[in-house]
Amino acid sequence: MALMTGEQYIESIRKLKLNIYMLGKKIESPIDDPILRPSLNSVKMTYDLAQMEEYEDLMTTKSSLTGEKINRFLHLHQSSEDLVKKVKMQRLLGQKTAACFQRCVGMDAFNATFSTTYEVDKYYNTNYHENFKNFVKYAEENDLTIDGAMTDPKGDRGLSPSKQADPDLYLRVVERREDGIVVRGAKAHQTGMCNSHEILVMPTIAMRPEDKDYAVAFSVPTDAEGITMIIGRQSCDTRKLEEDADLDVGNKNFGGVEALVIFEDVFVPNERIFLNGETDFAGMLVERFAGYHRQSYGGCKVGVGDVLIGAAALAADYNGAAKASHIKDKLIEMTHLNETLYACGIACSAEGHATKAGNYQIDLLLANVCKQNITRFPYEIVRLAEDIAGGIMVTLPSEKDFKNPATGSLLDKYLKGVAEVSTVDRMKILRLLENICLGTAAVGYRTESMHGAGSPQAQRIMIARQGNLSHKKELAKAIARIE
Amino acid sequence: MALMTGEQYIESIRKLKLNIYMLGKKIESPIDDPILRPSLNSVKMTYDLAQMEEYEDLMTTKSSLTGEKINRFLHLHQSSEDLVKKVKMQRLLGQKTAACFQRCVGMDAFNATFSTTYEVDKYYNTNYHENFKNFVKYAEENDLTIDGAMTDPKGDRGLSPSKQADPDLYLRVVERREDGIVVRGAKAHQTGMCNSHEILVMPTIAMRPEDKDYAVAFSVPTDAEGITMIIGRQSCDTRKLEEDADLDVGNKNFGGVEALVIFEDVFVPNERIFLNGETDFAGMLVERFAGYHRQSYGGCKVGVGDVLIGAAALAADYNGAAKASHIKDKLIEMTHLNETLYACGIACSAEGHATKAGNYQIDLLLANVCKQNITRFPYEIVRLAEDIAGGIMVTLPSEKDFKNPATGSLLDKYLKGVAEVSTVDRMKILRLLENICLGTAAVGYRTESMHGAGSPQAQRIMIARQGNLSHKKELAKAIARIE
Amino acid sequence: MALMTGEQYIESIRKLKLNIYMLGKKIESPIDDPILRPSLNSVKMTYDLAQMEEYEDLMTTKSSLTGEKINRFLHLHQSSEDLVKKVKMQRLLGQKTAACFQRCVGMDAFNATFSTTYEVDKYYNTNYHENFKNFVKYAEENDLTIDGAMTDPKGDRGLSPSKQADPDLYLRVVERREDGIVVRGAKAHQTGMCNSHEILVMPTIAMRPEDKDYAVAFSVPTDAEGITMIIGRQSCDTRKLEEDADLDVGNKNFGGVEALVIFEDVFVPNERIFLNGETDFAGMLVERFAGYHRQSYGGCKVGVGDVLIGAAALAADYNGAAKASHIKDKLIEMTHLNETLYACGIACSAEGHATKAGNYQIDLLLANVCKQNITRFPYEIVRLAEDIAGGIMVTLPSEKDFKNPATGSLLDKYLKGVAEVSTVDRMKILRLLENICLGTAAVGYRTESMHGAGSPQAQRIMIARQGNLSHKKELAKAIARIE
Amino acid sequence: MALMTGEQYIESIRKLKLNIYMLGKKIESPIDDPILRPSLNSVKMTYDLAQMEEYEDLMTTKSSLTGEKINRFLHLHQSSEDLVKKVKMQRLLGQKTAACFQRCVGMDAFNATFSTTYEVDKYYNTNYHENFKNFVKYAEENDLTIDGAMTDPKGDRGLSPSKQADPDLYLRVVERREDGIVVRGAKAHQTGMCNSHEILVMPTIAMRPEDKDYAVAFSVPTDAEGITMIIGRQSCDTRKLEEDADLDVGNKNFGGVEALVIFEDVFVPNERIFLNGETDFAGMLVERFAGYHRQSYGGCKVGVGDVLIGAAALAADYNGAAKASHIKDKLIEMTHLNETLYACGIACSAEGHATKAGNYQIDLLLANVCKQNITRFPYEIVRLAEDIAGGIMVTLPSEKDFKNPATGSLLDKYLKGVAEVSTVDRMKILRLLENICLGTAAVGYRTESMHGAGSPQAQRIMIARQGNLSHKKELAKAIARIE
Repeated sequence: MALMTGEQYIESIRKLKLNIYMLGKKIESPIDDPILRPSLNSVKMTYDLAQMEEYEDLMTTKSSLTGEKINRFLHLHQSSEDLVKKVKMQRLLGQKTAACFQRCVGMDAFNATFSTTYEVDKYYNTNYHENFKNFVKYAEENDLTIDGAMTDPKGDRGLSPSKQADPDLYLRVVERREDGIVVRGAKAHQTGMCNSHEILVMPTIAMRPEDKDYAVAFSVPTDAEGITMIIGRQSCDTRKLEEDADLDVGNKNFGGVEALVIFEDVFVPNERIFLNGETDFAGMLVERFAGYHRQSYGGCKVGVGDVLIGAAALAADYNGAAKASHIKDKLIEMTHLNETLYACGIACSAEGHATKAGNYQIDLLLANVCKQNITRFPYEIVRLAEDIAGGIMVTLPSEKDFKNPATGSLLDKYLKGVAEVSTVDRMKILRLLENICLGTAAVGYRTESMHGAGSPQAQRIMIARQGNLSHKKELAKAIARIE
Repeated sequence: MALMTGEQYIESIRKLKLNIYMLGKKIESPIDDPILRPSLNSVKMTYDLAQMEEYEDLMTTKSSLTGEKINRFLHLHQSSEDLVKKVKMQRLLGQKTAACFQRCVGMDAFNATFSTTYEVDKYYNTNYHENFKNFVKYAEENDLTIDGAMTDPKGDRGLSPSKQADPDLYLRVVERREDGIVVRGAKAHQTGMCNSHEILVMPTIAMRPEDKDYAVAFSVPTDAEGITMIIGRQSCDTRKLEEDADLDVGNKNFGGVEALVIFEDVFVPNERIFLNGETDFAGMLVERFAGYHRQSYGGCKVGVGDVLIGAAALAADYNGAAKASHIKDKLIEMTHLNETLYACGIACSAEGHATKAGNYQIDLLLANVCKQNITRFPYEIVRLAEDIAGGIMVTLPSEKDFKNPATGSLLDKYLKGVAEVSTVDRMKILRLLENICLGTAAVGYRTESMHGAGSPQAQRIMIARQGNLSHKKELAKAIARIE
Repeated sequence: MALMTGEQYIESIRKLKLNIYMLGKKIESPIDDPILRPSLNSVKMTYDLAQMEEYEDLMTTKSSLTGEKINRFLHLHQSSEDLVKKVKMQRLLGQKTAACFQRCVGMDAFNATFSTTYEVDKYYNTNYHENFKNFVKYAEENDLTIDGAMTDPKGDRGLSPSKQADPDLYLRVVERREDGIVVRGAKAHQTGMCNSHEILVMPTIAMRPEDKDYAVAFSVPTDAEGITMIIGRQSCDTRKLEEDADLDVGNKNFGGVEALVIFEDVFVPNERIFLNGETDFAGMLVERFAGYHRQSYGGCKVGVGDVLIGAAALAADYNGAAKASHIKDKLIEMTHLNETLYACGIACSAEGHATKAGNYQIDLLLANVCKQNITRFPYEIVRLAEDIAGGIMVTLPSEKDFKNPATGSLLDKYLKGVAEVSTVDRMKILRLLENICLGTAAVGYRTESMHGAGSPQAQRIMIARQGNLSHKKELAKAIARIE
Repeated sequence: MALMTGEQYIESIRKLKLNIYMLGKKIESPIDDPILRPSLNSVKMTYDLAQMEEYEDLMTTKSSLTGEKINRFLHLHQSSEDLVKKVKMQRLLGQKTAACFQRCVGMDAFNATFSTTYEVDKYYNTNYHENFKNFVKYAEENDLTIDGAMTDPKGDRGLSPSKQADPDLYLRVVERREDGIVVRGAKAHQTGMCNSHEILVMPTIAMRPEDKDYAVAFSVPTDAEGITMIIGRQSCDTRKLEEDADLDVGNKNFGGVEALVIFEDVFVPNERIFLNGETDFAGMLVERFAGYHRQSYGGCKVGVGDVLIGAAALAADYNGAAKASHIKDKLIEMTHLNETLYACGIACSAEGHATKAGNYQIDLLLANVCKQNITRFPYEIVRLAEDIAGGIMVTLPSEKDFKNPATGSLLDKYLKGVAEVSTVDRMKILRLLENICLGTAAVGYRTESMHGAGSPQAQRIMIARQGNLSHKKELAKAIARIE
C-alpha cells in the first residue's frame, strides 16, 4: 500500500472502535471532538508533509525490510545520516504544529525493540525478532501510527514492581496461554494513544528475576478488547469547547493530549509478543528506547522553540519595542539556547553507531546530555518569552468580550499596539504565547520536556554511567605525574 | 468605625454598583460569581486575619493620622520596623491564600502619594497633600480596600503619551472644570479592582512638559459613573465554572483576577485630585510607588513560594520519593531561592528612611534588586516543583472521570501513590501544583512576578542609576593607585 | 588603654615571637616581609579607620562589658542594629582593601563563644563564661586582633575525629593537668594568624561522646610555645618578591594570607579554657560561629565586589567600550548580584535576636542563605569582569618589559587604549582585575567565598534544617483542603 | 619530507632566530627556557601523537593538494567527517596536555584563507589563491607549525582602524613596493607564536573602503626581520623558574603562552601576500576564521575539561568524600556541561558544507552557539571543581616547606587525606586543580575561553545574523493564523 494522505489517516482512525473517556464522558468519535481533533491534526501533519515534494527527502525513505518507500516515522535507521534526518524531520514538525505530533514514540520504540529482540533471540534462542520484523512490515505496509508505551503508574516509587501493595501498578502478565498471554495494568502519559492504530508496549525499568511477569513487550491494536483510555486534563483544555472558540485557543489547529491507558486482561497473541519474562533484557530495551527518545527532543522541542521565538519577536514588533537593545538580546539568548538543544540532538545522531541487529543507535551519553538540557532551557526560553510579551499575555480579556457590543470597541481601542497592526493580530500572538507558556501546549513544551523520555535524574544516572570517570582520572594522573 | 470583619467586607462590596464584564457578559454580582469570588476571598483574608489575636501585631497598627487602630494595609509606614512588618504580613497572606491578595497596591500607592503630594505642595504651593490626607482618613475610618492603578495600555512603546496615534492610550485629563476634572483612558492589569471600594489613579511614567494632561493622580469610587472593568482571562479560569468543580480547581477558595479598567470621561471632584499637570513630579510618584511595590513582592511571592515548596514536598511524600537525595536537594534549592527573595524584601525595608513628609520609604536600590530576583527565581522554583511533581501533574484526568462509574475505580486504583495516602489526596496536591505552575495562580506567581511593579528592564535602569558606579570607580582607582 | 593607631598595631605585632615558615624558610619578621606585609596592612586598616571621625560610628562602639570605647571588631553585639553595622563596617573594609582584612573571624568567634559558654555553664555548672568574659575584657583593653580558629585538617572526611588513622588530624587534648591542658593538632586556612595577638580555638564539628578529647575551646597568644605557622602559597604570591615589584602586583598595599597552624603539645592555662569535653555543646559553638561568619561574607565580599565592579567599569572606559549596551548591562548585572549578597547580609542581621547570654545573634536560616549565594555570585561577577576586561588582562607583559628600553616604548605604543588615558593606568586596572580574578586576591574572593565559613553543602544542610518543611506542608494542605 | 618527530620539531625551532622578550629580558633560546619550554612541549605533542599508530586516523590524513600523508593540523578539510575528526583530535590533545597546544589557529587560518582567497581571486582576478596553495604545500612538505594571527591591539574600541589616534594600532601596509609590501603594527594574544615556524596574518574586523591599508593578509617566517615578540605574564608563571620546581607547578610538562607580536616595518614578498586592500573581503576572512576557531574550542577545551573533572574526582577520592551524593552530583554536572560543549563542537562539524574553493566549512550558527557556551560553562566547571577540591587547594604550603626539615614532617602528617594515599599525591592533584582554576592554565581554560576566537558579544551578533528571525516569525504567524 502507498503512503496514506492526511485525510486517509483521519478516516483510518475513524474506523477504529476506540474506548476513550474524557471529562467524565465516553468519546464516541475522537475525529469529531474539539479537544481531541487538534491532536489528530498534529499526527495528520506527519502524513501531509510526506506527500509534499519539498519535504520528501526528510519525510520519507526506503524501508530496510522491504525496499518500499515509507514514512520516516516507520523507519529502522540505517546510518547516522538517517539519525540526523530524523532530528531535522522532528524540528520541521515542531515548527509546523507548535505541539507534540506524537508519532515519535512509535519510531523510537521500533528501533529500540528491533535491536533488543535481536539480542534476546541470540541469547535465549527465542523468536521475538522475527515476530517484531513482521510487525514492522505490517506497520510499514499500512503506513500506521504506532503508540510506544513505556511508563507504568509505578505507585510507590520506593518499591520495585513485585513489591507494590497492588501488583498491577506495573503492567504484568496475569495469564500465560498456549496461543498468547493476558496482560493487566496501565501505561500513563500516552501522548499518541487516541490517534494511533497500534500500541507497542515495553517495560518501564530494569528488572530483577523476581519481576519476571513484568518483563513483557508486545503490540496490540489500540481498539483491542479490554483497553480503556482516559484523557488527561490540560491547562486551558476546555477553551476548545467554548462556543465559536477561535482566538482564545491560541493554537487552534494543533495540539497533543495524553491518556492513561488501562489494560484490563488484554489478550496478546504469540506472534505479537516481543519479550516475555527475560528480565535481564528489560533494562536494555528501556535504555535504548530512552536514548532514542532523548535524541528526539533535540528536534521536536527545538521546532516548537522556533515558533515561540518567532511569536515573541512578533509581540515585540507589535508593541513597538523591537528596537530596544534588551529585547534584541533576549531574542538572541532564546535562539542561542534553542540552537544548543539542536546541537545536542544533531551531535548524538552524528555520533551514532550500528547495533548488532544492524539498525543505528544514537550516542547514549550525548543523547542523555541532550535531554538533560531539554529539562532546563525550554523553561528559560519561556521565561524570556513572557518577559518580552508583557503582562497583557495573561490579563487579556476573552474573545467573547471583543465580540460583545458593550465592550468590543473599548478593547479594540485600548489594546492596540503599534498603529499599523490590528488589535486582533496582536491578540492572536499573545494567545499563542500564552498557549505555549501556560496553556495546552505548555504541557508539551514544559512539563513533557521535563519528564518525557525520563525525568532529569534518570539522565544524570546515565551520564554518570557513560561519563567514564575512571578514564578521566587516568588523564589527570598522567598530567599530575601520579603513578 | 471599627475594623470590618471579613463578612462585613463582602457585604460592603455587594453594595457597590460595579460595572464588570467577563467572558462576554456583564457580571451582576462579583460576590456570587464563581470566578470572581475567590478573588474576593483573598481580600477577605486581609480582614479575617486582622481579627485574630495571634496576628494582631502584624495585621493592625495605629494610624499616624488619627491614632485609631487600623488594618496595616491602610498604614502610612512610620519606621523601618513598619516596613519589615509589612513584608512579613505579605508573606503571611501569601501563605494563607497561595494567590495575589490584591490589597498591597493600595497600600503602596498610599505611601507613595502621601510623600509625593507633600513635595509637590512645597514646590508648587498646591493643596494635594491635604486632599490626600483626607482621603487616607476616610479610607482608614471605613477600613476600605483601595485599588492602586498605575499601568496605562501604552500603545506603541516607542512613543511618549502625547505622541500616540490615539491620545487616550495613556489616561489623561480631557476637561478641566471649576469643581474638578474629567478623565479618559484606561488602566491595565488591575488585580484588585473588582473587589475594592476606591481606585487611586497615578501616572505610569516620568513625563515631559508636553505630557501635561497625562500627569494626573486622583481617586474615585470603583463604581463611579463612566468606569467599566473587563476581566482578563486566566489559564484554567473556567474550571471554576464547571459543575461541582472542586478538585480540578487546585486552589478552590482563593485567587486573584485582573481587569482592564476603562475611564470614559469620569468626573473627579477637586478634593480627590492629587496631581494635575505637574509633569516634573510624575516620575517621583512612579518611582516611589514602584519602589514600594518591588519591596512588596519580597513578601507576597515568598508566601506563595512557601505553599509551592510544601506542595512539592507532599507530592514527593505521596510518590514515595521523599528520601531520594536529589529530591531533598531540590527542596533545599527551592527554599534557598525563596529565602533569598525574602532576604531582599527584608533588607530594603530594614534600610528604609523617612521621607520629607514623614512616612518611611524603602531603600530604592535594594528594592529594585529584590524585584529583579523576583523576575527570575519563582520561575526556577516552579521548574523544580514540576521536576518533583512528575508528569502526572499535567496528565491527570478530570475529577468528572473520577466520579464516572465507568472509570472512577480504575483511576483510584492506578493513580495511587504510597499505600497510606488516598488517591484523592494525591490528586489534590497535584492540582494545587498545576494551579501555581500552569493554572490561574501561575498568572500571579509567574507572569506577575515578571511584570508586576515594572518589567525587569525597568529595574535594571534603576539599578544602574542607584548603583553609584562612579564611587566604585574611585574605590578601584585608590587600590590601583591611579591618580 | 585607648584604641591603637595603625602604626601601634604594627609595632605590637613586631614584638611577638611568631614562629612562621613560608616558601621553605623561617620568616624572622612578618612586618618586613613583602608577602606578609600587605596582609598586616589590611588588618592595620581596621585600626586606621577607627581613628577617623567619619567612620567612628561604624568602626567603634561602647563595650558591653566595660562601657569603654572599643573597636567594633571586638564588640559583643547588643542589638540587630549592631549586627547591621557590623556588615556595613565589613563592606567598608572590603572597599578599602580589596582583600580579606582578617579581623572578622575573631569577632565572630567572640560572639559565638560568649553565648555558648553561657549555656554550657548553665547546664554543667562550669566556669567557662567567666573565663571568656575576662578574655574579652583583656582583648578590648589592649585593642587586640584575635584569630578565630575552627577548621581542622580532617584527614579522611568519611571518618569522625576519633576514628582517623592519625588521632591528631583533629585538634585534641592530649594531657589534662591541674593548671590546664595540653593540646595537639592543627588548624588549617588561618587567614589572620600571622598578624594576630591571640588565637581563639574552637572545635570544627558537632561531636559524639567518644570524641570527648576533641571538644575543646581555648585561647593562647599567637606566639605561645609549640605553635608553628606555615603560610600557604597563593596564585602569584611571589610577584611581591620581584625586584621593584609594583604594577604587576595588582593590589600592592593589601592582601591576606592563610596559614596552617600546628599545635605541638601547647599548654593552655585553666583560665583560658572555654570548653573541655562537653561534646554536646560543640555543635552549638560551631553552628553559631558559622552563622556569624556566613553573615560576615555578606559584607566583606560585597566590598571587594564594589572594587571589582569599579575596576571593570574603568577597564571599559579605558578601552573606549563604556557606551556599548552589552557592557552597561553586564555592569548592571554585576551590581545586581553584588547587592543581592548585601541584601542577604543585611537581612540576616536585621532579623537578629538576643541569645540567652544577652548578645545578639543573626537569623540562622538567612545567614546560611547569604553564604550559599556567596558560593555562587562572586564567580559570576568574576566571569563578567573577565568578559569586560578583554583578553589583555591575561596576556599583558611584565612591568619589567615596560622598563626594558628594548621593548618599553613598543608596549607603551601598542597597549594604549583611549587616547586620553595613559597606557600605565590601563595596565594598573588590568592588573587589579587579574589580581582579584586569578591572582592573590582570587584566593579570598573566589575560593574563600566557596569554602570559608563552611563549604556549600554545609549551608544546604542548615537550610534543610532551618527551612521548616513541615510547616510548609501544612500550608499546602490547608490550601488543598487535605485533612 | 616525512612527518617530523617531536624531537625533530624541537630541533627545528632551535634553529630559528626568534626575537623574544620576557620578564624584561631577551630569551636566547625558547627551547631551554623553563617558562617557554612547556609551551613547546604542548606543540610537540601534536607531532608525537601523529607518530603513534593508535592515533594515526585522527592525527594524520592525506593532503588534498599533494596526496601525501600529512599531520591533520595542516589539512584543508575535505568533508564533514574531516571536521568531526578535527574536533576529536583537539579533544585528545586537550586531554594529553591540559593546556593550549596552539597549533589550531594555523589550521583554522589555513582553511579560512584557502576559501576566501579563492573568492577574492574570482572577484578581483588576483592571484592570492595560488600564492596560498603554494604556501600550504610548503607547510605540509615541511610539517610546519603555523601561527594564525588575527587580533590587533585595537586602541580605542569605539573607533575604526583609520580613525585611531595612532594609525598603527591596527596592522597596516606602510609601503607598497614592486617585490612586495612593508607592514607595521602588532598582533596581540598570539598563543603559538614563539613555537611556530611561520606566522599567517589576517585582518581583525570587517572593513570599509577607507581602511584599505588595513585589509591585508600574508605570511612570513616567525624569525623575519623586524618581528619582536613580548611574552605576556600569566598567573603563577614564575613558579616554573623556582629552584627544583616540581610539585608547585601543577602541570610541569605542558603549558601555553601568549605573545604580543610587533611588526616594525616587516617586508612581505609578493608570493606570500593573500590579501592586499580588498576591504570588502576582510569580513569574510574574519568570519570564516572565527567560525572554524569557535568550533575548535568545542574540542580542545573539552579535553582540558576532561582532565579537570578527573582531577576533581581524584581530589574527592583522596579526601574520602567520593561517596557523598552531592559530590557525585557535582561530577555529573561537570560532565554534563563538558559534554554539552562537545556536542556543540560535533554538531557544527557534522553540519558542515563545502565552500566554493572545495574545502569544508562548519555550520556558522552552531559554531557560534558552541563558542558562546564556551564563554560560560568552563567557568561553572571550574567553580564546581573548586567546590569539590576544598579550601586546601589555595592554602597549601609550598613544596619548599615540604622539603624543609623544620616543617616537612608536620605537613606530611597534617595534610594527609585518606590513609591509603600519600600526602604528596594529594598535593599533586590539588596543584593541578589550582593550575587549571587559578594558575597558568586558567589563562587558557578560563579567559581564553571567554575571549579567544572572539568575545561573547561577537558571537551574539553572529547568532542574531544567522538565527533567521524572519523565518521564525513566519512560522508563528502560520500557527496564529495571521495573514
